[in-house]
Amino acid sequence: MSNPPRKIVVIGGSAAGPKAASKARRLDEHASITLIQKEADLSMASCGYPYYVGGVFDDRNQLICTPAGIVRDPVFFDKAKRIDALTRTEAIAIDRAAKTVACKHLPTGEIRTIPYDKLVIATGASPLYPQVPGNTLDGIQTLHKIGDADALRTLRDQGQVRRAVVVGGGLIGFEVCEALHLAGIHTTVIEKTASILPFLDPDLAKLIEVYVRGNGADIITDNGVAAFLGENGQLTGVKLDNGTELPCDLAVVAVGVRPNVGLAREAGLAIGELGGIEVNEYMQTSDSDVYAAGDCVECKSLITGAKVRAPYGDLANLQGRVIGQNLIEEGSARFPGVTHTGICKIFDYTVGFTGMSTQSAHAAGFTDIETATVSGLDIPPYMQGKLMISKMLADRKTGRVLGFQSIGPGDVSKRVATVATAIRGQLTIDDLANADLPYAPPYSLALDHVIVAAHVLENKLLGRVRGVSAAEVKQRVDKGADCFLLDTRTPQEFEDMRLGIGETLVPVGALRDRLGELPEDKDKEIIIYCHSALRGYEAAAMLEARGWRNVKIMEGGIVAWPYPREK
Amino acid sequence: MSNPPRKIVVIGGSAAGPKAASKARRLDEHASITLIQKEADLSMASCGYPYYVGGVFDDRNQLICTPAGIVRDPVFFDKAKRIDALTRTEAIAIDRAAKTVACKHLPTGEIRTIPYDKLVIATGASPLYPQVPGNTLDGIQTLHKIGDADALRTLRDQGQVRRAVVVGGGLIGFEVCEALHLAGIHTTVIEKTASILPFLDPDLAKLIEVYVRGNGADIITDNGVAAFLGENGQLTGVKLDNGTELPCDLAVVAVGVRPNVGLAREAGLAIGELGGIEVNEYMQTSDSDVYAAGDCVECKSLITGAKVRAPYGDLANLQGRVIGQNLIEEGSARFPGVTHTGICKIFDYTVGFTGMSTQSAHAAGFTDIETATVSGLDIPPYMQGKLMISKMLADRKTGRVLGFQSIGPGDVSKRVATVATAIRGQLTIDDLANADLPYAPPYSLALDHVIVAAHVLENKLLGRVRGVSAAEVKQRVDKGADCFLLDTRTPQEFEDMRLGIGETLVPVGALRDRLGELPEDKDKEIIIYCHSALRGYEAAAMLEARGWRNVKIMEGGIVAWPYPREK
Repeated sequence: MSNPPRKIVVIGGSAAGPKAASKARRLDEHASITLIQKEADLSMASCGYPYYVGGVFDDRNQLICTPAGIVRDPVFFDKAKRIDALTRTEAIAIDRAAKTVACKHLPTGEIRTIPYDKLVIATGASPLYPQVPGNTLDGIQTLHKIGDADALRTLRDQGQVRRAVVVGGGLIGFEVCEALHLAGIHTTVIEKTASILPFLDPDLAKLIEVYVRGNGADIITDNGVAAFLGENGQLTGVKLDNGTELPCDLAVVAVGVRPNVGLAREAGLAIGELGGIEVNEYMQTSDSDVYAAGDCVECKSLITGAKVRAPYGDLANLQGRVIGQNLIEEGSARFPGVTHTGICKIFDYTVGFTGMSTQSAHAAGFTDIETATVSGLDIPPYMQGKLMISKMLADRKTGRVLGFQSIGPGDVSKRVATVATAIRGQLTIDDLANADLPYAPPYSLALDHVIVAAHVLENKLLGRVRGVSAAEVKQRVDKGADCFLLDTRTPQEFEDMRLGIGETLVPVGALRDRLGELPEDKDKEIIIYCHSALRGYEAAAMLEARGWRNVKIMEGGIVAWPYPREK
Repeated sequence: MSNPPRKIVVIGGSAAGPKAASKARRLDEHASITLIQKEADLSMASCGYPYYVGGVFDDRNQLICTPAGIVRDPVFFDKAKRIDALTRTEAIAIDRAAKTVACKHLPTGEIRTIPYDKLVIATGASPLYPQVPGNTLDGIQTLHKIGDADALRTLRDQGQVRRAVVVGGGLIGFEVCEALHLAGIHTTVIEKTASILPFLDPDLAKLIEVYVRGNGADIITDNGVAAFLGENGQLTGVKLDNGTELPCDLAVVAVGVRPNVGLAREAGLAIGELGGIEVNEYMQTSDSDVYAAGDCVECKSLITGAKVRAPYGDLANLQGRVIGQNLIEEGSARFPGVTHTGICKIFDYTVGFTGMSTQSAHAAGFTDIETATVSGLDIPPYMQGKLMISKMLADRKTGRVLGFQSIGPGDVSKRVATVATAIRGQLTIDDLANADLPYAPPYSLALDHVIVAAHVLENKLLGRVRGVSAAEVKQRVDKGADCFLLDTRTPQEFEDMRLGIGETLVPVGALRDRLGELPEDKDKEIIIYCHSALRGYEAAAMLEARGWRNVKIMEGGIVAWPYPREK
């Protein structure tokens, strides 16, 4: 070698950092690569913590080992990757002029200064914490570090905790809720806003609320934590904004994270308006020799072009890989941006989303959008198909798919991955309406759920059908509005279960012969529904063709009705 | 109504026909719609036949009823859809000048002539049948009509059949194989060509062969049926091209289908070079008042633009829907084409594909393609992840994704749906390499299998790694070629199972210290492998950086090795 080896320093040993370091090593066997990690562990599978806590698996090493079962400790990084991993070491200052990082070995206090040619900042994020009285009591936790997972797992194994509160009704909050529930702990999720899972539209979120309660966990919305209550320094309960006191032995806080940008800010690197480190598409900060990735940066939305925060482990890995390439061949790789895709398991339901919700689309300035809510099975009834309830969003003018949310016991994950890819490709409703997806009865209906969602949305975009949500129907019923409610299912289905909101039953197959039972006033609002949607749509078409002018179908049908039913 | 109702006649009551008729009805309550169906049943879920035959479910009505449990008979079509469904009625001639269809009621022989304004031809396809001696013996079957399913189900329930042969190693052949195997019948699949499942590359097909044999069914390739053997009119065996005689009580023929175009041809409609009815993107035949859809037509490939045949139930439904719209609003809907996507369950494996295989890409004139074979889990090991082995294809120049094949016990279906959508959106490897897919441990690795496949393919496209297939390695070994085989796994993994092909074990973590065990000749071919691929890739990078010039990794690793192993 004629040139001296390039010196690469990576700050952060969780996801993005090790990925950048490892990729750089594969592209340059001779570089000097140092990884600075504050924690004792490296490359932790942090998204697995809830499943370790919940007892889905018992071997903690699985959180920090390779698929071949080798723990990713400094010896592994040295031997397999020739990366010098300094654990329990905190980077305390970056000197961009001198191109050095000062770091402190935490057990000894020893300070070292490490020179770099290229630097990577992957400092992650820190959990937010309610600034309320009592928040330093013992018994209040987050689930962010592996030590948090250890602590919660110990509590589970000891079996002493009987009641827990989860503060925050987002993804992590519900993963924790499930873990605690699996551990036999009665759990209440507290959400400050009106609706859990803020990436879902409220109607789908409401269905999850009903489902979670039906599984024995509690949810309180529209109510924050005013104080943590305790005795002798130990948590005994929480007091809510409305004064309610909930006794509990454990509180897990999951109200979001804040990017760790102190080091970057002090080094004079640009910080974005959302509080993350600013990076370009090469993941370079405002200093072209300094890269940043993971929970500490801001990304670009591929839908709006705006900056967004997207603190997800998969994106951290992707960004780390891009940096690893650019460290060795500058400008060789780009991270284009995100479509805001996520997923979470809650008991036997999956909750998934990609792109925008109705609220976020409005907030982003998409004023002319259309949505369709559909319910259906993932595979045929004779193959034991399971339900999914989904909402698809599109831009009215262009037909471009803007978002998709899906919940239920069915295979939501596949449908979300499909639509995420469609959004990535800027596909339209028309494209999805004719998608060529893998069909066989063990995997799909002949027309996959995603395709049916696109069909319904297309029908709405073309004005072939007008929809109304279950929430709107409930409001009308509660207000005593003068509308005619028509259930088009079979008498047997009606006997087995019905909404009991003043509806009239006329099976779709009998409707043409029983038009006399419908309102004489052709302008009266008629709201039609069935089990899911098809028979309602057929009935609506019949009535409109016969002169009724104000016919709507309740989207998603009875299975998307989150309110009490009869029987 | 001032105008007389438009008269729509649909020939064919399986998938495309009823879909077109039903969609037309929803858009025009007043049209006269007649559905002509040769069989006794309507809207049969024919893709479900293998699961009915195999005993996955027992209620035959599930093949012909709505999700609400109503059998789709003529009364249902009349009541729910006001469609006049004429069953056991065969369309025998189309008079395009007079705009009439002549049809015959099969039980009575009565001939009727039905006028149309718009006609739909959805006559489907017929199974091909080997033109060999003995092919009229009792005991030879197809699985095409519901009557075939009934007959096979009866044989299953009677439990008399002990040995069966399936003629044809395609999708249907293996679905039948699984069904018969489930029924306790020893089954041998006979495939005339060298490789089963022709949409797979031979290396993946070989892995399926090994898997199926391991599950107790037999496969014979490169050997067709020369004759069916029998006694007293009853099948007793088959004789293969190579002279082998296989005794069997049942033979199920699944060697493909031929579009039913006789009616269309006699009516003077254009038939394409592939033998299907020619249609434009509106699904109009050469007569703009006559539409056609389903197994009887030719489609356009969205990848090549060429005409293809794609006799799949999902596509028939999509095409039927497009026709239903155009029947009422001419030119309002288009069927853009297909990406050749399919899937099939074989025991606990899934086999899925989308786009082109290596062979079909070459045949279509893509001369400069690159492929990557990868193996990996669908979800993390601690969540009990299951294996998938996949091959991704891209065009070298543009990076455009051209195809994807995936097999294994893991969730192949989701990955195929994702890549099918990517192909639809003409996405590149670079797009997939940074895809924002739904990640949580119950659903995916942090970097999903599809993303990893794109990464490996990108590395190959950029020349960062050179690959060699298991088949090529086997050839070299069998020929006694002078290459150095390097297994980079751990001693424990090596102890548990190894290829035993003369390899040297040097774990990747020890490689830098043990370079002396490698060939001195820096030009000698070195082939590296591990369990899947990552450690091999790391080792290859190390060696290339140290001057070895002919280093390759065996793609997919040991799990993609379809030949005998040690232990």
